[in-house]
Amino acid sequence: MQKATARAHPNIAFIKYWGNRDDNLRLPSNPSLSMNLAGVYTQTTVEWTDDLTSDSLDINGEPAAEEARMRVSNHLDRVRSRLNMTTRARVQSENNFPMGAGIASSAAAFAALTVAAVAAADVQLSERELSTIARMGSGSASRSVPGGFVEWFAADTHEESYAQSFAAPDHWDLHDVIAVVSTEHKKTGSQAGHRTAFTSDLQPARVAGAQARFDVCRQALLDRDFSSLATVVEEDSNLMHAVMMTSRPPLFYWQPTSLEIMHLVPEWRREGLNVCYTLDAGPNVHCLCTADAAEEVRNRLQNLSEVGEVRMTSPGGAAEIIS
Amino acid sequence: MQKATARAHPNIAFIKYWGNRDDNLRLPSNPSLSMNLAGVYTQTTVEWTDDLTSDSLDINGEPAAEEARMRVSNHLDRVRSRLNMTTRARVQSENNFPMGAGIASSAAAFAALTVAAVAAADVQLSERELSTIARMGSGSASRSVPGGFVEWFAADTHEESYAQSFAAPDHWDLHDVIAVVSTEHKKTGSQAGHRTAFTSDLQPARVAGAQARFDVCRQALLDRDFSSLATVVEEDSNLMHAVMMTSRPPLFYWQPTSLEIMHLVPEWRREGLNVCYTLDAGPNVHCLCTADAAEEVRNRLQNLSEVGEVRMTSPGGAAEIIS
Repeated sequence: MQKATARAHPNIAFIKYWGNRDDNLRLPSNPSLSMNLAGVYTQTTVEWTDDLTSDSLDINGEPAAEEARMRVSNHLDRVRSRLNMTTRARVQSENNFPMGAGIASSAAAFAALTVAAVAAADVQLSERELSTIARMGSGSASRSVPGGFVEWFAADTHEESYAQSFAAPDHWDLHDVIAVVSTEHKKTGSQAGHRTAFTSDLQPARVAGAQARFDVCRQALLDRDFSSLATVVEEDSNLMHAVMMTSRPPLFYWQPTSLEIMHLVPEWRREGLNVCYTLDAGPNVHCLCTADAAEEVRNRLQNLSEVGEVRMTSPGGAAEIIS
Repeated sequence: MQKATARAHPNIAFIKYWGNRDDNLRLPSNPSLSMNLAGVYTQTTVEWTDDLTSDSLDINGEPAAEEARMRVSNHLDRVRSRLNMTTRARVQSENNFPMGAGIASSAAAFAALTVAAVAAADVQLSERELSTIARMGSGSASRSVPGGFVEWFAADTHEESYAQSFAAPDHWDLHDVIAVVSTEHKKTGSQAGHRTAFTSDLQPARVAGAQARFDVCRQALLDRDFSSLATVVEEDSNLMHAVMMTSRPPLFYWQPTSLEIMHLVPEWRREGLNVCYTLDAGPNVHCLCTADAAEEVRNRLQNLSEVGEVRMTSPGGAAEIIS
């Protein structure tokens, strides 16, 4: 078997990853914690073949831009190195969600790519090792390999910095209701952004407190304690954006409408709705809520004139081999 | 003479004051730097009189609320203590700018009150001592006693924490074009806000870098170097709001329109306009610019649909006795 297809879900971080202690290995500065998103996925087929002299990449049926192809090819080099092979690959990748859906795609992409590439070589690796390999393609991809609620360890070595599930998708039916504020391509991507993290005077303090926030968040999830979850999730998101906005040069991912929603969500919570916000490196607002609140949150977001699409997701499973 | 009238200007901080090392004495955590605002002022008459058994306060011709009267009376206690007197005072204060003009009024109010109260007692105190006394009424009032461009020292003792001018108003004709975004009364006032500063994990790092930003800002003003000024002023404003937004509970002073202007101003600067933004503990955006850019900045701000009033000010003088 020289061909395999895998699917992986994107994830939303509750405790954020921002900045690396090692940029090349993508060893993060702090531990992070996330939930996979069901219903949305990247599906990637990898075929190892002697017909090619360089790796090829199609995204959604079209040949990809050279920059994307190079990034995938560099990642396949890591897989080849691990598996002691030199063959080139034909890669076909598809997202079932549109670009600009407010969902970061690189996590799902590099998780699916890693799992498919290894399976296509007919090799069995542990989930832990697949996670470490995916991490080197895109940090948060390490978290899209295991299922449900996932923790990613900050460690000093490649082998120790992997993600694992600490609760299954059915542990708690949290919803992520995503308000799409802008479909514009962001000016500074996450990869470049991570490199600026330590130009902010505030990053060391954010990192220093991350383990404590991680512990609180993990326990709140295990206890299904929405109130504790909301406080720490919003604080952690604000801390990351505080670092971004005080980097040199400053990175502002929030749009005016993002801020409007960030003002509204805590008011809704005071009214009794179980909802809190978190934002990744982009303007779209992820409104985490309990299942009973999801419909109301969606309706309220859709009533805001500046909000485009509103997309609802729930806890998703691990990356898996489809064929 | 038992009666005197004084005027003082509000000021806009270029390097912000946020958080105290001593809340009672209002000894600030870090040095700050500001410009007085010409054209806008508080005018206060103090009359020491044996007719009263408690201090009275009228603001704009109306008896003030008890909370405001108490704060003024507490400040007059400091003046009485320094001057060894027990007489009560009749205080009449007027602002020539409306509430909600985007201009903090307490700095001008406590500077004018201090200067008038001492003059009405027919005592001469140095500007330095007047600044230290004003500081105890409202921290930033220390900076409204001297004129023009003002530095306020963070020190360990009451006597050493005062403000002084380091450049006269005519040193550089900077304008502060104020976009009034909201005239709503803010939910958390500055006094209460200062007390929360150290609940943010980020405040120690903000404070640690303040002296370096202060030095860069002071030199940029002395050199009339707008480009250096813009970078450090925006960074310092963002650092203060980063601390506010990550306090427990978080304080969000920015409104969506504030953020819209914060996105636009650096773009205008890249087009060649000498303008930068800074925000105090409120949603209104102070657009600092050179005189040649002021009209264009005002027009652009007025064209934004969510902006109410736009007010233009320039460097103002010291607090002064009028009669």
